[in-house]
Amino acid sequence: MPPRPWKTLARRTLLSRLPWLEVGDETVELPDGRVIEDFPWIRVREFAIVVALTDANEVVVERGYKHGPRVVALSFPAGYLEPGEDPLAAAKRELREEAGYEARDWTALGRYVVDGNYGCGAEHAFLARGAHRTTALPSDDLEEFEVSLLPLPDLITAWRRGEIAQLSSAAALGLALLSIRA
Amino acid sequence: MPPRPWKTLARRTLLSRLPWLEVGDETVELPDGRVIEDFPWIRVREFAIVVALTDANEVVVERGYKHGPRVVALSFPAGYLEPGEDPLAAAKRELREEAGYEARDWTALGRYVVDGNYGCGAEHAFLARGAHRTTALPSDDLEEFEVSLLPLPDLITAWRRGEIAQLSSAAALGLALLSIRA
Repeated sequence: MPPRPWKTLARRTLLSRLPWLEVGDETVELPDGRVIEDFPWIRVREFAIVVALTDANEVVVERGYKHGPRVVALSFPAGYLEPGEDPLAAAKRELREEAGYEARDWTALGRYVVDGNYGCGAEHAFLARGAHRTTALPSDDLEEFEVSLLPLPDLITAWRRGEIAQLSSAAALGLALLSIRA
Repeated sequence: MPPRPWKTLARRTLLSRLPWLEVGDETVELPDGRVIEDFPWIRVREFAIVVALTDANEVVVERGYKHGPRVVALSFPAGYLEPGEDPLAAAKRELREEAGYEARDWTALGRYVVDGNYGCGAEHAFLARGAHRTTALPSDDLEEFEVSLLPLPDLITAWRRGEIAQLSSAAALGLALLSIRA
């Protein structure tokens, strides 16, 4: 029998910290008729992330403290989508605003829901080629981080050393290389 | 100046649905002295996931409905760590219990915090080679899904068609192939 979806019978909001976060639960009916009264859902904003390569095969990386993993780690330019914003436009904006780079060729690597059970937003991943520095803009973000170019083999070495701490960046790196090499 | 961590000055729990979910916020002090009064945190259980290849280069995949993305999609054997459970042991257990497979060689692909800002658990990703069917066990899980073997090129085609909907599986696939090909 092919897999069948669950039915949502009721939905409650338990905590609202919009625009950042909403949490609640649902009464869901499973295909076999079982009813779960309190299956959680988590809503955070969707985000775009970009693995941007220069023509010299260097990758635009950020090194900064992230409060989720609570470590200083390598990541890629990324940010939440503005309301109604196209994911590609958001990726281009973040590459420009966070890193001061633009890029020639863009490839969409897919949209992925962050938590398979509870939701928790979605990642829109992109590969950009022909990245080139345009201007470094002052950031009004909460975060302080360093932007640099890392040759792709060095980035893979850094990954093997455990310097990528966030699932968003790990997925983007893996999918970008899959896209390049497949 | 190298990136500096934030300081947590106070921490509150706003919603508790243990063992599944806890949500709260923190008062954090940024390196530049700014204080954020209500930075959210989300706590869900850490999980293990495995991309298991047979010696014929086929991958153990599951096809089922996932309530996070709310679609039927391809994924890999995965599950939450039991309290105190070693991630590798959990990956082996899930491959055996969910799919009825064991494997000869195991490679750790890293631990990745799911949300870079809020936490939301962590993925422990593994590549397993020499996967072979042992026994199919009845599942008492909430989910109904089909287990099958997909030749690796077909899995990559399925990925390009958008049949992977969860960040956990997208990351595991990308990192497994990066590990194999790097």
